[in-house]
Parts: sequence; C-alpha cells; structure tokens
Amino acid sequence: MIDVVKIGGSIIDAEHQLDIVLDSMIALGSSAILVHGGGRLATQMANDLGVEQRMVDGRRITDEQTLRIVTMTYAGWINKSIVAKIQARGVNAIGICGADLDIIRATRRHPQPVDYGFVGDVTSVNTEALRHLLTATAPTIVVIAPLTHDGNGTLLNTNADTIAAECSLALLPDVQLTYLFDHAGVLQDRTDERSVLARLDRTTAQELVDAGTIDSGMLPKLHNAFRAAEGGVSSVRITRYDALQEDIGTWIT
Amino acid sequence: MIDVVKIGGSIIDAEHQLDIVLDSMIALGSSAILVHGGGRLATQMANDLGVEQRMVDGRRITDEQTLRIVTMTYAGWINKSIVAKIQARGVNAIGICGADLDIIRATRRHPQPVDYGFVGDVTSVNTEALRHLLTATAPTIVVIAPLTHDGNGTLLNTNADTIAAECSLALLPDVQLTYLFDHAGVLQDRTDERSVLARLDRTTAQELVDAGTIDSGMLPKLHNAFRAAEGGVSSVRITRYDALQEDIGTWIT
Repeated sequence: MIDVVKIGGSIIDAEHQLDIVLDSMIALGSSAILVHGGGRLATQMANDLGVEQRMVDGRRITDEQTLRIVTMTYAGWINKSIVAKIQARGVNAIGICGADLDIIRATRRHPQPVDYGFVGDVTSVNTEALRHLLTATAPTIVVIAPLTHDGNGTLLNTNADTIAAECSLALLPDVQLTYLFDHAGVLQDRTDERSVLARLDRTTAQELVDAGTIDSGMLPKLHNAFRAAEGGVSSVRITRYDALQEDIGTWIT
Repeated sequence: MIDVVKIGGSIIDAEHQLDIVLDSMIALGSSAILVHGGGRLATQMANDLGVEQRMVDGRRITDEQTLRIVTMTYAGWINKSIVAKIQARGVNAIGICGADLDIIRATRRHPQPVDYGFVGDVTSVNTEALRHLLTATAPTIVVIAPLTHDGNGTLLNTNADTIAAECSLALLPDVQLTYLFDHAGVLQDRTDERSVLARLDRTTAQELVDAGTIDSGMLPKLHNAFRAAEGGVSSVRITRYDALQEDIGTWIT
C-alpha cells in the first residue's frame, strides 16, 4: 500500500505542523508520496520583488514572473527544505516537480474565459517513473512540488490537490490518499471542529455547499477527492495534520 | 561510459550556449550527469530583495537569507528550467540537489579563518542512488544543482566544480569529466583563444599561476580537475561550451 499525502499551505507555514506530518509519514514505515502546496512564501516573495499578483475568483494569475517565483519557492526552497528535514530523520527522500522524469505532464489551460497564464491541467502521470523513485531505497518519500510541464519546455503551475489525486490514480490499486489541513475534516459547522462529516459523497457535498453548510472554498479540494474515490482509490480522506495515523476525519465515498 | 559535464554560470546566462550544451549532451545518446552553477540570477535576486551580498576573496558569504535565495534560484528555477528544456528535446531528465536521495552529503565549512556561512565541503557521494537515477529510463540526464545537506536538516551551498569532481570519482571506473565554459580551454595568453594548453599537470599549473600566465581564478576549477584526474577519472577536460563532442580543449593529467 502506498500512501499519497497532500499538505496545504497552512501546514507549510507552521513548522511544528509540518514536523508532525513528517514524523507520522516516517512512522508509516513504507515508501510514500508527499505533495505540498506553496504557503505564503510565494506571495511574500512576489511582494518583496514588487511583482503584482492578480487574482481572479481567488485564483492566482501565473504570468511569466510569477511562474519563476512559484518555481523558485515551491520546487526550490520548500521542496528541498522538506527533503533535508526528512533526511535528518534518517529516512531517504527525493524532491521533484512534475517535469522531473516526465512524471506529470500537463497542457496549458485554455485562455478563455479567463487567462490564468502558465497554469496547467494534468494530462498524464508516468507511473513507471514514479515507482522507480519510490523504490530507490526502502523506504523512500517522494516529495512533489506542484509544478508540471507541457513537454515543449514550459513549466506550468498546477493545483497540488489535483496532483495528489492524479498520482493516486496512477498508482492503483494499492494506494490511499489523504488530504491534511488544519481542520478535523469537512465540517458541518465551520466554527465547530467536532462537527466533522464522517462520510461524504458528491451529491451530498453539492447539497451542503448549496445550503451554505460547507465552505465553497472546499469545492476544488472535494472535486479532486471525488475524482480519486470514483476512480478507484480505496481510501480518500480529508483530515487534520496530526491525524494521518488515526481513524478520524472525513472519508470521501 | 558515463559523462559528467559541468557548466558554469556564464553558460546559464547565455541561453544559446545552454541550448548547444543540451543538444550535444543528448547527442551522446547515453545517460549522463549535468552539474550546473548559478549564473547571475542569485546575485540579481539578492539585489532585488535588498539582501546584501558579502564577498571575501571573491567568494560569496552564504548567510541564512542567501542560502534561501541560492536554493530557490539554483534548485528551483535554473534546475527545473533545464529539466523542462531537456524533456522538450525528447530525452528524459531529473533535476536534483545533493540532499535528494542523500546523494551528496557535506559538512559545514569551519568558521575559521573565514566564516563562509552555510557553505559545505563534500564528505560523501551515494553512488548507488546516483546510479538508480541514471538508470530510471535509458537514457536519463541527471541535472544537479550545487547544494548539499549535512544530514541534520540543513542545506549547504557547495561549489559546483567540486560536485562534478566528486560525482565523477563516485562513478569510477567508466566515467569522464568535462568542464565547459566560455573559453577554448586553459589559455597561456588569456587574450588569445588559440593559446590553449593541450595538457596540464598540477606542477605546471602552479608554475604558470606563479608566473601570472594562468588566471588565478582558474585555480579552484583546476584543483577539482586535478583531484578527479589523480583519483582515476580517465579523461578530465576543460573546454568550450560547444566542444563536448570534439577533441579539443585542455586535458588535465
């Protein structure tokens, strides 16, 4: 069984949360994939460099300068810092992005109706290459930064939730997918961490979003989780950063 | 035979030179290692971010902010851009730094007489892991950014010429090492590209430096080249970016 774990930006930004995730991944004792988001660093870098960030519907427009910034921060500092932290725990790790070994290929998103710039939608995952890295040593944690490439020399900024789902689907059948963030799961009342929905299917999720019960910001994550579950990933779960080894959170069915 | 090729910063800064290097590496038709330096980007980033760069004897002091900048630029933007460029030529590539798969471990340089900060001296190369990547697909180009780690979670800035030499020594016996830069080789008269020394040994090099014939800036590169040659690397050569497949340049003996 291979675990694919995705951690959001808020975990990257809180070092003690990241430490807990890394400890629990190592406690799994087997090779695993860790997909990470970006956190505040890219935005902070853009601010420091005076590169204006444009957002449409809460999503970043990735122009050429922004592509460079996210590649530097995600695939450079964050990715390699995580690798060094795992090595310090005596477990082997390799940090990659989707361009490496042609592991995740994407096409640039159509510029209509909104031109998001250098943003990619995943078209293929190279399962063989991914397995080659997972078996480099036993165990090996493959740390993936959310960037892909188009095969023509262009890197593309790609949603980390999507990358986690696509990698899981590529590793079927013995794979489970966990989205870790700073809440106990999908909440019925977002002010109450005890209101975790134990199970969630696509229809119920849409009803709860329509009723205003679920935060619409959860929708992209849920969309990817449903894709993985419907594609055959045996366990798809959304839970808190310290619950990887516990049976709590929201299972996507 | 595995080729280890090191390209300097001036090639990174000149895209047409980089393209020529990548084309000629692919023409080798076999797995190879490409070690790259940093070019002007790190210095430019530091300037843009207002991070003052301190130099001692022409060498950069790597404080914490500078470590972050060089990791972002070397292991992030430059490394992944090169990988995407190789993929666009239909050949597989993977970009790593020394922390990945624990491939290059280093110790932080002693702070006396000069504290260079987060700068590492190589202590070990993981040959098995490096070979695992070189055999990921046939052929695979492993692109290495000049950063290592200390095994305790800290990344270290490390000389790219040294990394190229150490990787060559780790892959003995069937390996050759080529340093590519923007001159035809080690010159007797640095204003005349035709004054290339065809062969150079350590004693002659020191004499030529003492006599002011060889630029003292060549010494660190030569030191690494001599280490590799004396350690058994069958061919160690310093030559121009467009001469990888030609029999020209300076052979280190």
